[in-house]
Amino acid sequence: MSATTDQDTCCSPTLAAPLATADAELLAGAFAALGDPVRLRLLSLIAAAGERCSCDLQEPLGRSQPTVSHHTKALAAAGLIVGEKRGKWTWWRVVPERLDDLRHVLDTPALASVREA
Amino acid sequence: MSATTDQDTCCSPTLAAPLATADAELLAGAFAALGDPVRLRLLSLIAAAGERCSCDLQEPLGRSQPTVSHHTKALAAAGLIVGEKRGKWTWWRVVPERLDDLRHVLDTPALASVREA
Repeated sequence: MSATTDQDTCCSPTLAAPLATADAELLAGAFAALGDPVRLRLLSLIAAAGERCSCDLQEPLGRSQPTVSHHTKALAAAGLIVGEKRGKWTWWRVVPERLDDLRHVLDTPALASVREA
Repeated sequence: MSATTDQDTCCSPTLAAPLATADAELLAGAFAALGDPVRLRLLSLIAAAGERCSCDLQEPLGRSQPTVSHHTKALAAAGLIVGEKRGKWTWWRVVPERLDDLRHVLDTPALASVREA
């Protein structure tokens, strides 16, 4: 009920301790959504633009509208992007908190040596 | 040929710019390997221990030796862990540089607002 709960990342999981099964299941779904090169490029196009119209994704990806739509749906289902319908098109943006959760879970004590190298 | 090339992360991709197709393909393979809750828990068990014997993974995961072996092979093929054979067992540790590449690619200008929140 704390006002800071939503943004408080003190207790989100990292690789410094074994992951609980429930956390692993939630996170695995998001990583699986990133496990496709077209979806990764799609995410990067949206992230780099800040916000991007679904009408402006086919050409840079070289994919059809149904394919682009399939991939945006998968990223949205994983909580990585959110869309806002405006007329005929949807405008997509990334969910930075969700990306931060994934970055956080990849943190491990072993990374300290890389950062200090 | 620079001595610092291997550890130089100045030019590894991030979501601040659209990903090149070749980068996306390499990275997607690693994310796909993380897209399974058992593999994520396996990675966390190895990362938390620093180094962990394959003989000490079955019990905490509640999986058979062939299943554990299948998952360690997938993580190793994705470059996320490396193993050293000692007698009958393999000892696994994470590859921090590879985890750092994945963390790096999830970086986006939008994350700055989360960090500052």
